[in-house]
Amino acid sequence: MMTYDLELRGAQPKYEYLSRCILSDIRSGALAADERLPSKRVLAEHLGVSVTTVENAYTLLVSEGHLYTRSKHGFFVSPRPAPPPAPAERSEAAEQYLFDFKANRCSMSLFPLNTWTRLMRKVLSDQDDELLQTVPFRGLLVLRRAIADYLYGCRGMSVSPGQIVVGAGTEYLYGKLLQLFGPQSVIAIEEPGYKKFAEISNSYGTLWDYIPMDESGIRTDVLARSRANVVHVSPGNHFPTGTVMPAARRRELLEWAREAPDRYLIEDDYDSELRFSGQALPTLFSQDGRKVIYMNTFSKSLVPSLRISYMVLPEALMELYESRMSFYSCSVSSFEQYTLAKFISQGYFERHINRLRRHYRRRKELMEEALAASPLASVCDMRRCSVGTHMVLRMDTRLSDGEIRRRAGEAGVHLALMSDYCLVPSIAYSGQVVLNFASVEPEQIPMAVRQLERIFSGDIDLKKLS
Amino acid sequence: MMTYDLELRGAQPKYEYLSRCILSDIRSGALAADERLPSKRVLAEHLGVSVTTVENAYTLLVSEGHLYTRSKHGFFVSPRPAPPPAPAERSEAAEQYLFDFKANRCSMSLFPLNTWTRLMRKVLSDQDDELLQTVPFRGLLVLRRAIADYLYGCRGMSVSPGQIVVGAGTEYLYGKLLQLFGPQSVIAIEEPGYKKFAEISNSYGTLWDYIPMDESGIRTDVLARSRANVVHVSPGNHFPTGTVMPAARRRELLEWAREAPDRYLIEDDYDSELRFSGQALPTLFSQDGRKVIYMNTFSKSLVPSLRISYMVLPEALMELYESRMSFYSCSVSSFEQYTLAKFISQGYFERHINRLRRHYRRRKELMEEALAASPLASVCDMRRCSVGTHMVLRMDTRLSDGEIRRRAGEAGVHLALMSDYCLVPSIAYSGQVVLNFASVEPEQIPMAVRQLERIFSGDIDLKKLS
Repeated sequence: MMTYDLELRGAQPKYEYLSRCILSDIRSGALAADERLPSKRVLAEHLGVSVTTVENAYTLLVSEGHLYTRSKHGFFVSPRPAPPPAPAERSEAAEQYLFDFKANRCSMSLFPLNTWTRLMRKVLSDQDDELLQTVPFRGLLVLRRAIADYLYGCRGMSVSPGQIVVGAGTEYLYGKLLQLFGPQSVIAIEEPGYKKFAEISNSYGTLWDYIPMDESGIRTDVLARSRANVVHVSPGNHFPTGTVMPAARRRELLEWAREAPDRYLIEDDYDSELRFSGQALPTLFSQDGRKVIYMNTFSKSLVPSLRISYMVLPEALMELYESRMSFYSCSVSSFEQYTLAKFISQGYFERHINRLRRHYRRRKELMEEALAASPLASVCDMRRCSVGTHMVLRMDTRLSDGEIRRRAGEAGVHLALMSDYCLVPSIAYSGQVVLNFASVEPEQIPMAVRQLERIFSGDIDLKKLS
Repeated sequence: MMTYDLELRGAQPKYEYLSRCILSDIRSGALAADERLPSKRVLAEHLGVSVTTVENAYTLLVSEGHLYTRSKHGFFVSPRPAPPPAPAERSEAAEQYLFDFKANRCSMSLFPLNTWTRLMRKVLSDQDDELLQTVPFRGLLVLRRAIADYLYGCRGMSVSPGQIVVGAGTEYLYGKLLQLFGPQSVIAIEEPGYKKFAEISNSYGTLWDYIPMDESGIRTDVLARSRANVVHVSPGNHFPTGTVMPAARRRELLEWAREAPDRYLIEDDYDSELRFSGQALPTLFSQDGRKVIYMNTFSKSLVPSLRISYMVLPEALMELYESRMSFYSCSVSSFEQYTLAKFISQGYFERHINRLRRHYRRRKELMEEALAASPLASVCDMRRCSVGTHMVLRMDTRLSDGEIRRRAGEAGVHLALMSDYCLVPSIAYSGQVVLNFASVEPEQIPMAVRQLERIFSGDIDLKKLS
């Protein structure tokens, strides 16, 4: 029977919250296509709500096309709509915007191309014969050693190279983890959060639950009542809310994980290098290396098109990985692995990160100054971030998210909204603009903020915008 | 109920063949751990064999540890044995053999390193800004165009770049296909054949059936009675038997595929570039582009550590792929994609292939000459191959495969046996040596053949070996 805790609805009306819970179960596959739902009366009794609440929730889902009725037979889950016909392949040129606050591109000027090229040449001349050898399934030992040393020096993590798996992107590694955990596992995904993990889980046939966030991060009380045994979190800098998980919540999460042998935390530390101020908390992995899988990528800190990510597995899990998954060849070319190994072990990576950090700190300060000086300041609550390249503006606006998106398009601004990162739409997250300033050059920032103002002009606070 | 066609047993005793069928179902997951098997009497009646046949089959499986008994309760499938403790990580240096007839390494001298390096430098200087852009999910259009042109010119295939997906190795692409086909699909795998596909399928929770081969390739009569709806074949040059599928069998396969909308053939054309003589048959894909997925890799023809493979999908399947799988980022670095695109479109790839072909033809002739001049010639049936870098020796020997492997190790020879590529051990494939001569340099060949002789000296035909 569908069991939901309606106490978690916050300010949402009961029927609306209930409908989102059911929708989540439909999307995750917990409710299958053409499955019959319990009668309104039965579900109402089960959940301790009125029949009207259930009726309203069902009606809303029917109106949205997620349920259908058969007269006298009740409510059924709609089959997934047929996929739309494939559009003609888009050209490779990205869509043109005046200002792109969504793309996660670093500017070419920041990539140490000369060093990288020189190391590539060095690899080509030094490593020739090794370049033709088959790579171990975990990745090249030289690269894993360099990563282990880096993690020790910069994140205080003590891991052996044998615990590291190198793969062609984090999506690839998440896929391998889902296979390792097997089909009986259920993944907990933060809401809002890394929605793509839900898509990846769907494509592997793995069930997932979304778990709401509060100001400390993922809600462990909801997690404890969910079916999940594996949780994906970014305690160092949650995307897109920017939440840094405090020590108490980390402890609760680790306690939850220790309660059963098949429980694990996946710590996605994608942004940790870009800390502008303060001391980073130790990683969850450092706190309990038996319960945490640490995941990080070079796509973010070097170049998106370099598909090199890695994960650190607890030793016992690595044994299982080796016995079940070592027949898979390593998915990254050895040429790029050798180059990256040199880049890290010769200190270039750390220097590059320091340079990036200085650069983005300056960009962030410019953004904050421009926003503070703008009429927008009076109608938005700006969440300052100490890590990463994005910030969140909570707008005091009557515009719907759709309208904000449309106006942004007209103003030549590409931006993301918090609701883009929600698995299930919720009023609680509307009107929040997520700005990634990685692709907006410093000299463009004043102009870009002026375009942001245009989006909201004509809204309630028109006169403040003068 | 377990249904097997015992007419397919060939020369094997009934009970032995039956036990291999059951074992195959255990390995594929069709029979689950701790599942109770039908009683001997019930299965015997169902299959139309004697109770003794079933009893012998069950007893054999118990003695091998695949089944267990509980007194008065019958026979049960053994749970998979716990994975052995992970060995200490092996060093990256490959094991040292005098002669390696198993490794699929091309010699460094054949790789056009200078050209490749020059193109890499060109990409670095020309493409700089593009290198930082995100790559479309299918791969870079320039690379897919180059591949489409190459396939048209060299394989007579007419495909659009929009039908091509580039990925980090064929294993990666097979994984994506399994996700696309979904959990209800069953894969047919040739026996002997590409056993790794069974491992990949297991790790995705997809069922598979193994289908025996005859001298024309995969047996379509067995296929028709199997549960499979997707078949993996290498009609151009089957590994490891070297069978080239004749036109009649190809027609049968395509007819089978056309019988149901969810039936597809995967054509693994991994070796087609290395054709030494004669005219290649057109690809299955050319014969019916709606029913065939074409798969090929550059790891084989260029460098194993370059993880770039591609597949060509029928248009309708590509629409489905786009709607379901396009959220996955391309798994190959754009730097290597640009380099390879130049390498192909400027004609270097074709020249490289021609050079490889000449080189391996010479190596193959040297192998054939050395074997013909050896006492081995009188005790083996050598299967000549017109494609690829391997040959099969059917030895007239009393040595078991285990003993051959042990003696080969002593003689410093790394070799594969046909049974290594079988999902289920069978006497029909014992005593067959699979020699891959890609890693044995021409000047080593006479010595290498002498070591092969040593393996079989002391065997029945000792005196023939002088």
